This record gives sequence, C-alpha cells and structure tokens, in this order.
Amino acid sequence: MNKEEFRKKVMNALERRFFCIPSFKIYGGVAGLYDYGPPGTNVKSNVLALWRRHFVLEENMMEVDCPCITPEVVLQASGHVDKFTDLMVKDEKTGTYHRADHLLKDFCMEKLKDQSLSVEKVQEFKHVVAMFDDFSPEQLGSKIKEYGIVAPITKNPLSDPYPFNLMFQTSIGPSGMIPGYMGPETAQGIFVNFKDLYYCNGSKLPFAAAQIGQAFRNEISPRQGLLRVREFTLAEIEHFLYPEDKSHPKFRKVADLEFLMFPREEQNGVKDAIKLPLGDANKRNLYLFLTRLGINKERLRFRQHLENEMAHYAADCWNAEIECSHGWMECVGIADRSAYDLRAHSEKSGTPLVAHEKFSEPKEVEKLVITPVRKELGLAFKGDQKKIVEALEAMDEKEAMEVKAALELKGDVEFQVCTLGKAVTIKSSMVSISKEIKKEHQRVFTPSVIEPSFGIGRIIYCFFEHSFYTRPSKAGNEVEQLNVFRFPPIVAPFKCTVFPLEQNPGQKAVAEQISESLTAAGISNIMDTTGASIGKRYARTDELGVPFAITVDTAPTVTIRERDSKKQVRVEVRKVVRVMQDLTNGVRTWEDIQSKYPSHPSISTADKFLEQKQRRFTTIFGVYTSIIIMGIFVTYWI
Amino acid sequence: MNKEEFRKKVMNALERRFFCIPSFKIYGGVAGLYDYGPPGTNVKSNVLALWRRHFVLEENMMEVDCPCITPEVVLQASGHVDKFTDLMVKDEKTGTYHRADHLLKDFCMEKLKDQSLSVEKVQEFKHVVAMFDDFSPEQLGSKIKEYGIVAPITKNPLSDPYPFNLMFQTSIGPSGMIPGYMGPETAQGIFVNFKDLYYCNGSKLPFAAAQIGQAFRNEISPRQGLLRVREFTLAEIEHFLYPEDKSHPKFRKVADLEFLMFPREEQNGVKDAIKLPLGDANKRNLYLFLTRLGINKERLRFRQHLENEMAHYAADCWNAEIECSHGWMECVGIADRSAYDLRAHSEKSGTPLVAHEKFSEPKEVEKLVITPVRKELGLAFKGDQKKIVEALEAMDEKEAMEVKAALELKGDVEFQVCTLGKAVTIKSSMVSISKEIKKEHQRVFTPSVIEPSFGIGRIIYCFFEHSFYTRPSKAGNEVEQLNVFRFPPIVAPFKCTVFPLEQNPGQKAVAEQISESLTAAGISNIMDTTGASIGKRYARTDELGVPFAITVDTAPTVTIRERDSKKQVRVEVRKVVRVMQDLTNGVRTWEDIQSKYPSHPSISTADKFLEQKQRRFTTIFGVYTSIIIMGIFVTYWI
Repeated sequence: MNKEEFRKKVMNALERRFFCIPSFKIYGGVAGLYDYGPPGTNVKSNVLALWRRHFVLEENMMEVDCPCITPEVVLQASGHVDKFTDLMVKDEKTGTYHRADHLLKDFCMEKLKDQSLSVEKVQEFKHVVAMFDDFSPEQLGSKIKEYGIVAPITKNPLSDPYPFNLMFQTSIGPSGMIPGYMGPETAQGIFVNFKDLYYCNGSKLPFAAAQIGQAFRNEISPRQGLLRVREFTLAEIEHFLYPEDKSHPKFRKVADLEFLMFPREEQNGVKDAIKLPLGDANKRNLYLFLTRLGINKERLRFRQHLENEMAHYAADCWNAEIECSHGWMECVGIADRSAYDLRAHSEKSGTPLVAHEKFSEPKEVEKLVITPVRKELGLAFKGDQKKIVEALEAMDEKEAMEVKAALELKGDVEFQVCTLGKAVTIKSSMVSISKEIKKEHQRVFTPSVIEPSFGIGRIIYCFFEHSFYTRPSKAGNEVEQLNVFRFPPIVAPFKCTVFPLEQNPGQKAVAEQISESLTAAGISNIMDTTGASIGKRYARTDELGVPFAITVDTAPTVTIRERDSKKQVRVEVRKVVRVMQDLTNGVRTWEDIQSKYPSHPSISTADKFLEQKQRRFTTIFGVYTSIIIMGIFVTYWI
Repeated sequence: MNKEEFRKKVMNALERRFFCIPSFKIYGGVAGLYDYGPPGTNVKSNVLALWRRHFVLEENMMEVDCPCITPEVVLQASGHVDKFTDLMVKDEKTGTYHRADHLLKDFCMEKLKDQSLSVEKVQEFKHVVAMFDDFSPEQLGSKIKEYGIVAPITKNPLSDPYPFNLMFQTSIGPSGMIPGYMGPETAQGIFVNFKDLYYCNGSKLPFAAAQIGQAFRNEISPRQGLLRVREFTLAEIEHFLYPEDKSHPKFRKVADLEFLMFPREEQNGVKDAIKLPLGDANKRNLYLFLTRLGINKERLRFRQHLENEMAHYAADCWNAEIECSHGWMECVGIADRSAYDLRAHSEKSGTPLVAHEKFSEPKEVEKLVITPVRKELGLAFKGDQKKIVEALEAMDEKEAMEVKAALELKGDVEFQVCTLGKAVTIKSSMVSISKEIKKEHQRVFTPSVIEPSFGIGRIIYCFFEHSFYTRPSKAGNEVEQLNVFRFPPIVAPFKCTVFPLEQNPGQKAVAEQISESLTAAGISNIMDTTGASIGKRYARTDELGVPFAITVDTAPTVTIRERDSKKQVRVEVRKVVRVMQDLTNGVRTWEDIQSKYPSHPSISTADKFLEQKQRRFTTIFGVYTSIIIMGIFVTYWI
C-alpha cells in the first residue's frame, strides 16, 4: 500500500466513523475548515486533558484563558500586522490565488520524478525544495519566471509574488472604528498579562504560563486536509527565563536519551536527520508527551528552522516534526522568542514588562551621569532650554563620551538637537559628564521567552495515521481487511463497549447495569445491543479504536477482550468497573490484568465454525476423540 | 453590606487574585473582553469537565467540535444575518452608541427610586421595566421621546432606535469574496451536521448532541462586567426529538422536586416567581448541575420568556436565572427551537435534514394523485406542454380539488400557469385528479429541537458571588475581615495547599514529597514555603477558595484543615494522597474524614496566644490548675 492509498484508507475511516469531516458539508464545505464528530471530539478533549496534566499540572504552569478577538494595537506591537504574511501569486486571468512557495515546491517535486534528469538538475531541484522557505519575494518571483511556472489547472500566467496578511480581520463595537483581528496564536494573551503573571508567581523567575485556545490563519489555499487549516486549536507554553540561563527548571531530570535531530547546517537537501542526545528538557518532555499519546518514536524528529524560515519574532526555532503520509509535518514549534514580545509590548503600551533581580549583595556598577546646568543653558538659549536639556540627557554612552572629550579639548562643542532641527554650541560650563561607580541592589531586565507551541489538530491527525492498521478477517469464505485504530486507553474516544452476547433480556439487563456503573465512574462506554454477530460488533468498535470490549455471557462473570491482541480474560461482574478504571488511568496494563484473571478463548467467526464442527464430532465419537478430531479438522481447514 | 459594596468586594478579590481581569489591560482594555487568570482558568476547566460528565457522558450525548468561523450562507439560513440585532440609538452630537432598551430601563429604575411618585406612575414604570424587551422599535422610540430621555453623561439628544447586527464580520480566503462571521452560538455547527449525527446514532430518535465553544456577539455597549461580554464560552445541547413527544428520555427519573418558577402570565411587574413542581427532566438535570457547582438554590429560578423577548428561532423559552448583585441573570436558556433550524438548512442547502420512522405495521394514508395526460396536453399546447405539466403537478390539495370539481361540472377550466404568465384552458381529458388510499411503511419528518444553552462565563460569575463570604480574624489587636470563596472541591481551582509549618529542611522535604505525590495523582496543589505565619498562609489560600490545607509538622503525620469549618484532622503522610483523592472526587465527604481520623485542635493566632498564656500558667501552678486557669483566661479574653 503506497502513501496515497494508505492516506485514503485512513481518511475514509475517519470520515465514515465521523471522527472528522469538512465543516458546513451540506453547503459544499469551506476550504480549510473541519469539524470533529463525536469520536474525534472525545479524542481531542482526551489529548487536551493529557496535555494539561503532562505540562500544566506536572510543571506547575499558570494557565490563562484569553479572548480570540484581539485589538489591532496588540498585533501591531507584536509585529503580526506588518509581518504575518505569506507570498501569494494571482492567476492573471481567473483571479484565483495560490501560495507562491507551494507552486515552486510542487514544480520541483514533479520534476524530480523524472528518471532521465541530469545529476546537476536533480541537485538543483533538491536544493530548491530544501531552501524555498528561505527565498525572498524577488527570488521566488524570479524562480517562477525562470521555470516558466503557470497556474495549476488553468495554465494561465501568474502575477509577481506579493505578501498577503494571514489574519482574519474584523471590527469591534458598533462604530466599526476599533479594528481587530482573530488572534493568529494564543501567545499574545500571555505576553500582555506578563506583569500580573509575574506578580502572581511571587515576582520570581523562572516560571511558565500556558494557554489552550483557537488560532486563526486565513491560509491562501489550504491543502493537505486536516494539516493546513484556517482555524485550529493551539496549546502554547511560554517559559519566562533569565536571559543568561535558559535551562529548564527540570534540566536535572534530562537523561541522555537519543532522538532524531536535524540541525540547520545539515539541511542542504542531501543529508538526513541524525541521532543525537537531546540535551534539552523542553524537547524531552514534549517527546515523552507525544510518544505517550501513541506517536511512533521512529517517525518523530526535531528539525531546526533555517534562518529565513523562522517567524519574525524568533531568535531560534526547532520543530518537532512527525512523519505522516504527507511527509514530515511541523506539529510542535519550540521557538526562542528572546525578549522580542515583552519589549515590543512594553514600548507600545508604556507599561514596563520587566523582571527584577535582587542581588544577594550590592554590586558596583559604572554608570554614566549627565548633569545639564540649567541656569547656564537658560541664559544662553532661553525658550529652547528644555529641549536642549532633554537632548543632553538622552545621549547614549558613546555620544556622551565624545561630547565630554570635545569639551575637555576645546571648551565647547556643536551639539545637534533633533527636536529643534538645528545644532547649538554647548560650553563646558553648561553640562557635566562623568562616569561614576554606583552600588546597585537589584537589576531590572526583560526576561527571555522559550515557547513550545503545540498544533493540536496536526498532532491528532498524525496520531490517527500512526494508530491505523488493517487486519484480515474471514467472513464466510471471503477474507476482508478490517480497520483498527490502536489508540492507547488514555486517549481512546470510548474506553470500552458493553455487549450482551445474545439478544436476551437477562444479558441485556446485566449489560445495562455494567454500562451505568461505568458511566457513574466517569468511564465512557458504548452499548451495542444490536443482533449483529459478536465478530461484527468487535469490528465496528475496533474501527473506533475502543481498546476493550466487555461481553456479557454467563453472569456472574463477563469476558473482557483487548482490541489489538484480541485476547480475552474472564472477570466477575462486580470487579469490571475497577478493572476498567485501572486499565484506563494507567494504574494497570493489559498484561497485569491477563496475569491476574483467567484467560478466555478468543472466538472469531472462523473459530466458531471450527468449534461447532468440533462439537458435532465430539457428540458422535465421544469426548475422548475430540483432540484427534481437532487435529484432523485443523489440517483440513488450513 | 449593600449589593454594590458586596460586588465591589468580590470583584476586588477576583482581580487581585487574578481570577479574571479586563483583557489587554496594558492597552487600556477593550469593553466586553475579559481574561481568566490561572485560578479562574482552573475553575473554568473544572466547570466544563463537570458539565461534560454531568450531561455528555451521563446522557450519552454526541459531542462535536466545529470552527467559530462560519460562512454567511449558514447564518443567512439560520436567520442571524437578518434578525440577530439589538436596537441602538446614537448620541446625535458625539456619535457614540447606546442600547435603546437599556437607556429606557435605566430611566425607569432611576424614577422608581423617587419616594414621592404617585401610585399610577410607580405602576407605569414597573410595567415598562417588566415589558421593555417586548417593545417594537417604534414603541421604544416613542417612549424615549415621551420621557425625554437623552444620552448618558453628555445629555445630548438621541436618534430614533434602529437595528444593529451583533455578529462580528470577517471574510474568508485571500480574495475577500467569501463573507463570514464569528459564530454567535455553537448550535449551528450541530444543526448542519444533523444528517451525520442521525446516521451515527443508528438513524434513531431521540438523541442529543452537544458542543462547547466560543461565541461572539458584538454588544453595542457592554456593561455589567463579566456578565455581558463580547466573546464567551457556550456549552450547548440540542435534543432531537419526535415533534409529538418532546419528553426527555430520562423523564421517568423526574421527581416532583419544587423550584422557583416564573411563567409568562405572572410577569406583569407586580407578581413574583412561585414554587412549582418541575415536571421537566431538562430543567431538573440543569438544576442539579448548578446546585452541585455551588449555586445557591434559593437564588435560582426558571423564568419563561415573554412572547417578543424570544429569539427569532424559538417557539418557547425558559431561562434558568441566577440572582446576583446585578439582579436575576439569564445563565441557561432552554429554548424550544421546534423544527426551525433543520427546516431552514434543508431549504437553503438542498440537503434534507429529516428523520425516518418505520411503522410497525403499514398505515393507510389518503394521498392526492395528479396525473397529467401528456399526449393530450402536447397536442393542445405544443412547446408550452412542459410548463403546464409542472404547474398541474405543483397544485396543492385545495387547488387540485377545485380544478377537479370544475372539470366534473363543466368539462373544462381556466388554469393559471405562472411560468407562462397566462391562463390556459384545461379539458377533463388532459388531467386526472383523484385521492387514493395508499399504504405507507414509514414517515419522513423534521425532528423537533429542545436546546439547553449554558453561558459558562455567567454561571461562573454567579458562582463566584454565591461562594464569596468574609469572616473576622484577629490579627494582633485588630480585627480584619478575610475573604473566603467556599468552592466545592470538584470545581476549586486548586484542591489543596501544602505547608511546612516551620522553615526547616526536614519539613520542607516532606512537604515537597507530598506535593509531588499529589501531582502524580492528578491533584492540583500549591506549595507555600514562605516564612509567613500559618494563619496568613491559610488566609491567602482561603481567598483562592482552596478547600484543604495540609500542614507538615510532626511527621509521620500531618494535619489537614478544611477551609470553611477550619476544623483539622491528623493523617499519616502515606495516607494523604488517598484521602485527598477521595475528598476531591466526591467519594468521601469532610464529615467522613473527620469521623475516621483523629481531630487536631485548630490553632488561630488568638488561640495560640491563649495557649501560650495557658502553658505559662500551667508551669507555675501545675497541671491540675490548668482547667480553672483556662476558665479565668477565657473570661478575661472575652
């Protein structure tokens, strides 16, 4: 099965079982918008609950919950109004839009399929594919021209690439006068609250704040189904740190576990990711979260962003990428946002977003002291005095030292006052400039920020792919392939099903009673009382990724069947809830349960047929021949 | 303490402890947008988790998760583009906007404070306050003119009231050509998915779907703090039912519990809510949810909407209203949306959103059968034949019976064909019209919808007010009033605190170990290792509504103190996690714990002083006098 076939199978199962479907389907859908149906919603809330427990609770983070609607001023400060853009080209005849970088990439990928390509050309196209994120609008435009790339389908000529802002715009209030946007990330809500968060943490660093929320990005031409969408759930963490010590508070717990790492300098299109020790607690915790979910660790790597690939706020960025049928997908970005956002909001809002560090003992610091002599300046410059004083006080160290040197050498200096639009002559009697040693008891600084940002929808999609497999099943004389999602119990949409084996009132009553007790204990479950064969009912529930099936047959015991091994154990009815509780909250594994309770032979359709034959023969030849007969029959059957 | 003072105290505690604050505060805030800080976010996610468990899990609902961005066509069909409006008046000089109904209500409320008002006037203003929601734009406008109401603060004249659409508008995609809105409710996402949900439920009614999500309403002039905001979390349920049987599946479990009920005909401004049996499982379940949260049941009532007060889609509506310092607030709306939405989306999308009911035995139904005779019509009308056939087939029962009667009487009839723009003469040979008895095996119909819609933010705010109280504390010789939130453990932002009694490494290590075990068990907790007195530390945590405080003193036991009773028990360290688990997931009450573990005397600052004095005296006079001494001292102290 190739990648496309595999993806089609997964998508088919996901849509048919209502994990997710295109939004507003009855109206023809809207590109880039998807709904989660009931099992998908359950998986999503389980993933978010696990995320909260794994990060927020475990690391004692401060979680906040801020609105999506964001006034323009906030996103001006953060740089999103100016810089949160993608390059777009327009089909010059139909007026439809395309992402310039995607067209270029598609073109090269198509070319690379050509076996007769020269080695140089292969190298060139590979290089472009690896580096296109790194191209300026002009470079992209000239590559598109050079390769003669035209619009897909229509084959019309394309415009030059130009930036398109990806934010959804709206206006706040009845006047239409307050411009606003739907937040493209949840992080800004945390940054603007820094002051209160810092206070709430006892005015101490380091600490982390977190937020789960919707993010909105008006993609030019969404593709890749659930992976590139226009509205999605982000779970973001902002670690606020000392700029000179960005280590994670739990750094000491970092083992030298090895991961697939793909640093910037290796990404020239030829080399591959390499195994390296992690050396970073953030990455490690994230790795543990993803593998606990059920992401295949061999298909998880950390890739460093190329210089020009990084968001405008990032000083460095590593992605956790998960391999799926679409290739390696960025699912978690770990950006070093340095002091970018806090500084930007401090400046724009006038509220200092800073931290204080009290020194254990005062430190001696050399400080520049500029003291304008107001009386002299007033006599010489009258009404201009105030602006000159301000200009003198605003000198940086270099300029002040030059003025000082000039005054000491010549006694006066020509001094440019921008606010006056002219230069004035300053004499040495008019200002004193010196460097003094001062004792300081604390320092005031802007904290650095490390941000792990989780694209929940992408993680869930990759998780769906990694969990999916098919297995053969004999139905009559046909062999059909049944779909299974091997979701771990903690994120499975339903923890178990409850089946009465036969359509009889006694079994149904016991099943109902078990289902009610499970619900009361907070364990989601499905009752299937249809007359379908037990094999069909197992198959239905396997395709939903339900890990355990409880079948009511001969009370006071029931069988519990595990989805992937198809193994069964026999458990007393009164112990079912406790067993399911232990299995779903991770207190006990299936192996623990198997070793504790008697196993029950698994009965598939084929097995059942065999069993019936066996029984009939047993009746004829008597019990003592049954083993021999079984041997004959198995041989015959195979 | 009057209502305003009380509200101020609550809001002060909420902002100071960072439960919630105005969003984008460093930029001066945006009216109608609030952030939840860390404890507020915890309360909110606990409330949502409880909601999921109480409704979705317990009643086996199908939860979905749809985007906020909604294309215009969906909201045109639902009626929101035309009808989701409030009446607005404009300050004719400054151009600021106000809600017309609010200005009228405020004016009347102000007038009603006047003790010298005649009985007739009192009646009139009370009537207006009770009925203003029921006024048309013209009625509102003429009342505003009649009373000479002007703009608040500026006292400028006001424009006539006119409708303002409350949805936030945006556009989807790079062309700006797909208009969209931020959904004003989550319900539409459920309605457009009806077909898949119905299929997913085995094509059976009744069933319920649910969704938790953000809703957006561009309020004209948001007031009442957290109660009227522009973005908020809704938790909505849509029960899809047989139109002739709207009873809840769990109707049988409804007891004749009595609630405050306020039916439409009682709301003339004079009468009050009355105690009535509930008789509705939806209301009962909702009541149980709200009281389980901690809402005071004496301050909860169900009020029926007045005719014109209802949303455009509602056939009937009852609100669960909670009384807070702002008056009775709508927190949950239970609307009978009948078949409104499903019909509207069926028509607009062309996808039938219907249910099928198979009859246990076929039913005989009288059916109109119209059979145009194409040959005759073709001969007579040539090219017009097709349109005439369509027009004949489209006749409703009344029209068809008239045509039939005329044909039987006269042999021909003048028949108007709109699509031709003229009448034609139809002879009895050209069409046969009859009523036939047909056997039908099923019926196809549009299900009815009952919607309980929960305003989570409003519920949380009322819950904050109902949970808040102050109690006196002796600090030195002063008595101060300390704030307490009496949150039940299940929704409290943190389940417990862990304090080492003294600043010593041994106690701190035990405290850390307890905190880590609690975290591992998923129990949120706060460590407070500051040197503040134990009384101060209790006070801090009481104000956050933390129900239990674990104080490490003389290991191997610790004390656990309950917030409201201030009573303490002594528990072995190794049992702490289990006790906390039982207390927070509702397996055991505090009373159970008190009866199981030895009590520990509560030590307040005053008590401690007393105890020290007592100890000193005991040393002097010997143990046997201590009881007498205590008596003397208590007298002296009081």
